[in-house]
This record gives sequence, C-alpha cells and structure tokens, in this order.
Amino acid sequence: MSDKIVVLGAGNVAHHLVPALLHAGHDVCQIYSRSEGSAQSLSKKSGLPYTTKIDDIFRDADIYIITISDDVIANMAKVLKCNNDPLVIHTAGSIPMNVLHTASKHYGVMYPLQTFTKSRELDFSSIPLFVEGSSNEDLKRVKTLAESLSNTVTILSSEKRKAMHLAAVWACNFANHMYAIGGKILAENGLDFSLLRPLIAETADKAMELHPIDAQTGPAKRKDRGVLSMHRELMKGKHSRMALYNSISDSIAEYCNAKNSEQNSDDEDSYVELTLW
Amino acid sequence: MSDKIVVLGAGNVAHHLVPALLHAGHDVCQIYSRSEGSAQSLSKKSGLPYTTKIDDIFRDADIYIITISDDVIANMAKVLKCNNDPLVIHTAGSIPMNVLHTASKHYGVMYPLQTFTKSRELDFSSIPLFVEGSSNEDLKRVKTLAESLSNTVTILSSEKRKAMHLAAVWACNFANHMYAIGGKILAENGLDFSLLRPLIAETADKAMELHPIDAQTGPAKRKDRGVLSMHRELMKGKHSRMALYNSISDSIAEYCNAKNSEQNSDDEDSYVELTLW
Repeated sequence: MSDKIVVLGAGNVAHHLVPALLHAGHDVCQIYSRSEGSAQSLSKKSGLPYTTKIDDIFRDADIYIITISDDVIANMAKVLKCNNDPLVIHTAGSIPMNVLHTASKHYGVMYPLQTFTKSRELDFSSIPLFVEGSSNEDLKRVKTLAESLSNTVTILSSEKRKAMHLAAVWACNFANHMYAIGGKILAENGLDFSLLRPLIAETADKAMELHPIDAQTGPAKRKDRGVLSMHRELMKGKHSRMALYNSISDSIAEYCNAKNSEQNSDDEDSYVELTLW
Repeated sequence: MSDKIVVLGAGNVAHHLVPALLHAGHDVCQIYSRSEGSAQSLSKKSGLPYTTKIDDIFRDADIYIITISDDVIANMAKVLKCNNDPLVIHTAGSIPMNVLHTASKHYGVMYPLQTFTKSRELDFSSIPLFVEGSSNEDLKRVKTLAESLSNTVTILSSEKRKAMHLAAVWACNFANHMYAIGGKILAENGLDFSLLRPLIAETADKAMELHPIDAQTGPAKRKDRGVLSMHRELMKGKHSRMALYNSISDSIAEYCNAKNSEQNSDDEDSYVELTLW
C-alpha cells in the first residue's frame, strides 16, 4: 500500500509539486492552505480535497510535505497534529531540517532548486532536488520520494543547503534584477524591454555549456576605460545605479584577473577575440 | 550589380556577420584582420580571401564593415584608404557614428545587440540590429542591408545607442557575473556549477514572457530579514561579496516597492504567493 501524502501550502512550489507527485503515482490525499483562494485553485488543478483549517488536516497520513513560506515552517511544525510519527518534510532552501523535530520523530528536507511561478509549466524531472534526513532510514525515504520526481537528487546537509540557496539567489534573483535595471534604462530612453530578450536568452544559453567565467565578455572584463567612463557619464545623477555599476564592474575584473592568472594564456589573438562589448 | 563588401576584423562579430552576409546573398570580397590566425579561421569558414596588411585592403569596395574592437575603430577610419567614397559602417554599441567621417563621406552604424562567441551557432535573423546613417540616403542603405540580415531593425541615434549598450551590459555581462558568483559559492562548498543550470535557464525563460520586475522572487523582494541575515552570516569575511549582496538586495527592494506603489494590489494571497526564496 502506498504512502498517504498531505501537502501543506498551495503556493508556487505546491502548484508544481502536487502535479509531479500525482504524475509519479503517489497518493496525495489532501491539500492545506490558510488561503481559500490558493487552496481552491490547486484543488481545482489537481482534483484533490483541501482544507483551510489546521484542525481539519488529515491526521493519519504517512508523509506531510510542508511547502509554506520559510518564516512560518517552524510554527507549522509546532501546530501540526498528526498520529503515528509520520515522515515530515519541508522544501525550503534556507531553513534547517531540525525545525521539524516538534512535528514528528521522522523528518527530512527535499529542496527543489528552481524559481516557481504558478502560471508557467515546468518539467519537474529536470529540477535538482537536495535531500536530507534525520536518520539514515528517513534519508532513504526522502531520497526514494525525490528520485520518483526528479533525475537529479543530491544528498546535502542543512549547512550546505544554505550555501546552495545563497548561490541560487545570485544566479536567479540577482541575475533577474540585472535584466530589470537594463529594462529600466531602456524605458528611460523610450525603448522596449523586448529588445533585450534575444541577448538574455543567449547569455543564459551560453551558461548551459560554458562556465560563466569563460563566457564573460564586455568592457569590465577587458578593462576598457573609454567605454566604462562613457557608461558612467550616462548614469550621472543616478547614484545607486552608478555605485552598483562600479562594484559589479570591479568584481568582474577581479574574477577575470584571477582566472587569467591561473592560465598561461596565449595573447596573440586577444585583440580580435574581444567582442564589441 | 550587387555591392562589393569588405569586412574589417575577424573576431566574434565577424565570425557571425560574414556567414549571415553570405547567406543573404551579399558579395563579400575580402576579410581583413591584423591577426593571421583569426583571418585564416574566418577565411576557412567562409571561403573568402583575406589579408593581414592594411595596404592590401581592397580599395574599390562599395561597403566597408568595421567589426574590430571599439577602441581601434577611430584609428581604422583614419588609415583606411578607399576609392569612390564607399559606405563605411561600424558595428559597435558604444562608439559614435561620426568617428567614421575620416574614412568617407558616406557612413553609418549597424549595431547587433547580442553576445557573440565564435564557437556558438546563432540565428542572425533574430538579432536586433540598430542602425544610423550620416544622411537620409546613407541611413536607407544601412537599413536595407540590415533588413536583409535581421527581422528586427531599429533606427537609433548614437546617443540612444549608448544607452542601449549600457542596458545590454547590465542584462548580459552583469547577469552573467551573477551566475559566476553563484558558481563560486558552489565551488567553495564542493558543489558543481551544473546544478544551477536549470535555474538559470528558467530565470531567462521567464524574462521571455514577463517583465523582470513582475518575475522577481526571493528574500530581497519580500524583505525576509531572517533569510537576508542568514545569507550575510554565510558571507562573513567576504567583504566585497557581502557589499554587493547588500547593494543588489537594496536595489531589488527599491524596484519592487516602486512597482507595488504603482498598483493597488490585492494582498489576500500574498502569504501563499511567495516562492520559497
């Protein structure tokens, strides 16, 4: 008989996780969310029953997966009433596993490294999942569950998971903010954000096959003072944008220098190898 | 009879532009590069003759396209000897059109907004080209040439082109550097950069349909102090990384606040709408 699973939370993660669980043949028996709207929406999408009341959460499930936001996971672990010491799992990058010890003897983490938006389809099997368990036996159960959902499952401690989460913030939230600032500059000049899209797509595509340090181009990398000072001229009066521009340019130069000093590069072609920016 | 074209430079841009010109049926008659290796490589790829000597550049072409790096374009325009006042075009984002006036009466710009790597195939027709001409007649010629190569051709002044170039540095070089810092954090923890790839791909894919301000997620956006201070703890001792983290997080909060204050958003779902980071 397969494990009965309750999913707590009906936000972006649950909107992708629940269909993936069902697709893998798991027996999801209930969704809980304190928001009626989100619970309804996920219930409609998945055909599963839902509740918005903590007291009505099904108590006899085998696995509880907590997908609610980071800052309320510890509270949920305290108020969750369940029988028979089920396996309780959270899915957050930045929260230590042991906040779950108040909910059950058996607990673990399954952290999906992805940016989730309800409206976008994602292939869950290609999302890296990082797993942890409070005992070898619990780890094995979490890992088996994760492997039924994704092709990339890695065992990772709470400490390393924090670093993974920090790295993800840089590669996702911060990269996205660089797009946003580019878009702002275009808007200030009456130009449409869509003009940047082929460039954004190619920049990400390059990172699919090259390490970003090898893929880097532009005036900061090649220390092109003429272009750097022209850019600064354009940002006059925009103090925080200029400060950010300078810090990031310095950081690029530092990373590229460190890389070059590791190599005995042949400089013969350096003049023609430069891209236009 | 079609225009005879000489391409000056055999770097990343020329490696993509020359095949696109040939594909569109243009008569490219010569490549010039001061680097024998790059000239040979592009000559081999395109089947075109090349020279590495300024004095051997074919003087009777109708169009010269200068794809060499930004800082040497003005010099090239001074030493280029050509007959019959041909159309001289450069392809740089950050260089004003009028540096070309020493080469000919007829000149213009065709700036491709893309990051070019020799080893990667690109669909040139999807690259936005920004064009400018020293007269209406010259602009018309540059625009016709550009439209034979790309589906997105926009007339843009040297001033606006500079802003476009600056925006591109943010959306490409700076976004790529955010990947690099993410990769560095993983390396410091013994984890492979490839784990970030699905996240990078999805972050860019989101920007294909959403404006990045609407696509933003994460602790900086939702001002999650717990996660922000946990991240700062992880970066203790890494002063420049920490400073950059703080500046970018502040900037994200500022952009997202500005957006929220423009909207009368319905906050009912805000708790569940949050992604895990």
